[in-house]
Amino acid sequence: MKQPHLIVLFGATGDLARRKLLPGLMHLVQSQLVGDARIIGVSMDDFDDDEFRQFTLQACREFGTRPVRSDEWDDFADKLAYVNVAQGAQVLAARAADLEASLGEGARRLHYLSVPPKAALDVVRTLAEAELVDRARIIMEKPFGTDLASARALNASIHEVFAEEQIFRIDHFLGKEAALNILAFRFANGLFEPIWNRNFIDHVQIDVPETLSVSGRAGFYEGTGAFKDMVVTHLLQVLAFMAMEPPTALNSDAISEEKNKVFRSMRPLVPADVVRGQYAGYRSEPGVAADSETETFVALKAEIDNWRWAGVPFYLRTGKRMAEGARIISIAFREPPKSMFPEGSGVGRSGPDHLTFDLADASRMSLSFYGKRPGPGMKLDKLSMQFAMQETGRQGDVLEAYERLIHDAMLGERTLFTTAEGIERLWEVSQPLLDDPPPVRLYDQGTWGPNAVHQLIAPRSWRLPFERRWRDAPTDD
Amino acid sequence: MKQPHLIVLFGATGDLARRKLLPGLMHLVQSQLVGDARIIGVSMDDFDDDEFRQFTLQACREFGTRPVRSDEWDDFADKLAYVNVAQGAQVLAARAADLEASLGEGARRLHYLSVPPKAALDVVRTLAEAELVDRARIIMEKPFGTDLASARALNASIHEVFAEEQIFRIDHFLGKEAALNILAFRFANGLFEPIWNRNFIDHVQIDVPETLSVSGRAGFYEGTGAFKDMVVTHLLQVLAFMAMEPPTALNSDAISEEKNKVFRSMRPLVPADVVRGQYAGYRSEPGVAADSETETFVALKAEIDNWRWAGVPFYLRTGKRMAEGARIISIAFREPPKSMFPEGSGVGRSGPDHLTFDLADASRMSLSFYGKRPGPGMKLDKLSMQFAMQETGRQGDVLEAYERLIHDAMLGERTLFTTAEGIERLWEVSQPLLDDPPPVRLYDQGTWGPNAVHQLIAPRSWRLPFERRWRDAPTDD
Repeated sequence: MKQPHLIVLFGATGDLARRKLLPGLMHLVQSQLVGDARIIGVSMDDFDDDEFRQFTLQACREFGTRPVRSDEWDDFADKLAYVNVAQGAQVLAARAADLEASLGEGARRLHYLSVPPKAALDVVRTLAEAELVDRARIIMEKPFGTDLASARALNASIHEVFAEEQIFRIDHFLGKEAALNILAFRFANGLFEPIWNRNFIDHVQIDVPETLSVSGRAGFYEGTGAFKDMVVTHLLQVLAFMAMEPPTALNSDAISEEKNKVFRSMRPLVPADVVRGQYAGYRSEPGVAADSETETFVALKAEIDNWRWAGVPFYLRTGKRMAEGARIISIAFREPPKSMFPEGSGVGRSGPDHLTFDLADASRMSLSFYGKRPGPGMKLDKLSMQFAMQETGRQGDVLEAYERLIHDAMLGERTLFTTAEGIERLWEVSQPLLDDPPPVRLYDQGTWGPNAVHQLIAPRSWRLPFERRWRDAPTDD
Repeated sequence: MKQPHLIVLFGATGDLARRKLLPGLMHLVQSQLVGDARIIGVSMDDFDDDEFRQFTLQACREFGTRPVRSDEWDDFADKLAYVNVAQGAQVLAARAADLEASLGEGARRLHYLSVPPKAALDVVRTLAEAELVDRARIIMEKPFGTDLASARALNASIHEVFAEEQIFRIDHFLGKEAALNILAFRFANGLFEPIWNRNFIDHVQIDVPETLSVSGRAGFYEGTGAFKDMVVTHLLQVLAFMAMEPPTALNSDAISEEKNKVFRSMRPLVPADVVRGQYAGYRSEPGVAADSETETFVALKAEIDNWRWAGVPFYLRTGKRMAEGARIISIAFREPPKSMFPEGSGVGRSGPDHLTFDLADASRMSLSFYGKRPGPGMKLDKLSMQFAMQETGRQGDVLEAYERLIHDAMLGERTLFTTAEGIERLWEVSQPLLDDPPPVRLYDQGTWGPNAVHQLIAPRSWRLPFERRWRDAPTDD
């Protein structure tokens, strides 16, 4: 039984709505993966319903992953309405009532807040005033707050209106496929879980370089920076899936609980373990201050003080305008004693054994290890085994990341959303860094970040860019 | 410094000499991987030197893996001589003295006994009489003895002439590459050794089906059978490389010691854990008795009572005229608890995680495990990662298995040879089976053996033929 939904999309004419949310909603509704729906776009643009439909049509044509058939479009357009935020809560309430009447009994409400953090509270108040709280779930975009105090205040204020079970704090980076894939890999196999701990793992890298600049969103970015934009909401969420204990079941409560336990065990991030960078030319971007100290790059060492992970550093890195785009998790295993192998055999020469997940490509993973080079003597080379789910030909009609998140929220499935406790704890461990940020260091565009990033991880080294080379050629050297 | 060698090849006109040993010796000598050499062929044929040279030339042309260049052949032919075994030890001694004189000071001797077990002792006595024991190593072909008593008697008699350090008992099946590859895989990586034990491994399969019949060597085979021909010398040697503790160094003494420890910990093979088979039509082969009870197929369960392996069965299988030829070692890992995954998720449905070595292809290995099928819900499929050394383009001028063994023996490198203690212990654990062999069961040619082979391994199942399917298509089902 698929429930009908009234969807209220705040920020409906923004960049995210145009690129992802409107095309995603159209696909979800057309594919009948969800029940019938009516969608109210809310924003500051002075649109009427038809203008919003035109805006949506263009968005679906430009950014949708599937062609727009005209009969399907006509059907979808009828479900769309628009309210200018300036019209106020009463107008919104009236439009909502009209549309809900056409959905019949038992319709649920889904409010999507694609708005900056500081605007979130106003939207929540509007929803309260419009009496759209019952039967509702609310999806909040990241970042959720900008530090511990603001996150707590935001949670407290929202909780005056919505119960925690109604709130879905989004993390779009780690798509559900990638997250569930990590869980399946770890817990459906007898092979990996026994070595998934401090006895056998040397360190973990979560590395998300981006080639994009901040052009077009410098206004938002200037007030946020790489750490708040990416680390708290995204990279640390990935870390939790890698590091968590086996949940008792594959449901969102059990998974959230285990993720929160990881966050509780995290040590506060100390400024000495953080490298902030800013690409050369950032200060010339429109909307950026000439003396901006906003970081476009951040790398840091995180530590988890529990039985499984104590002493195992987790190195995180992300930045704009870097040499390549990638999203990998790489687990480096401890080196074996080398005494058995003769001098010069090459064991350890190309770094430790690695298991690498490629999150940009949900099911790609690879395992690199040492094997004997054919021929006389014992010479060892780094070899790799690779696996990509696509090659199996099993790829079905996979939902886009945002489609999946909206779909999950409609079903009340919370695995990929963060809890108030989790997000507050992450701001808490981030607070020393926010209070005393290290200076930003310039890096050239098209590089892997400032040089200090190598000192951060030394004597280890970053898996990227070598991982790329090693994907093409089977050995490192 | 490559030492010159006098090589005395007994059984020089036999099938093995023709197919492998003579072409192999020519390649070794021509490639200058070994020092200068003179080769005396000894056999029962009434050849003179030139006839033996013609025989050798034909063998190299027909079975050599490289073209025979005429200048190279002329050079090699000059190094060849022949002695009819009927001419006796004095003639052999005289020819040897002549040839050694042409090699200069410090030549070593290598005696290769490509003769049946019962003829070995006569050859050893001849060598003693010809005074060719000093500075000599002696390579003995498998099988070494036919039971514990004969192996002990043979060792005792040989030890009257040769010291144990001079004796190289051959096992040609597990080429040095494959053996060293297993050692490198296990001990050069931090990843695998931690799970290489009873806590994480459910069972091991060593599976060597052959499609060949015994045609052409039924006379030998009829008195030997699959168990003595393949299991004692070959499959159990492979088992030792899989199961042994890390040696203190990669030298032959250290490796032999660890292999012998595995053999010491093996439980005696009980007839109830053994399936003997005979392919339909074997009794009609020329040279086979009409009521022959010789097995052309054997499968058995071996157990190693030590801290690492207690309770982990090792299933071995080999036979003639089977459906496919293969040489694999497959390690099945224990299944994880399934409680986390919903009913019908598919975890465990396609059997346990497997790591498979393909010995027919020294560096091919694959790892199969469960991963999430893309799309909604948690459905698990068996996936596989594969690796083949050839794909790296690093394949050098790799020696043929026999070339490698001869080369190693010339250098006194014993890693791939079995010791007196090891071979006697293997006959000892085999004795209950030899004393009370289970009946042979007929199987159709082109199958995977008699049905009882499934009961032997139940509730587990043989990895082959599924491993093949899964190599072509990435999933089992």
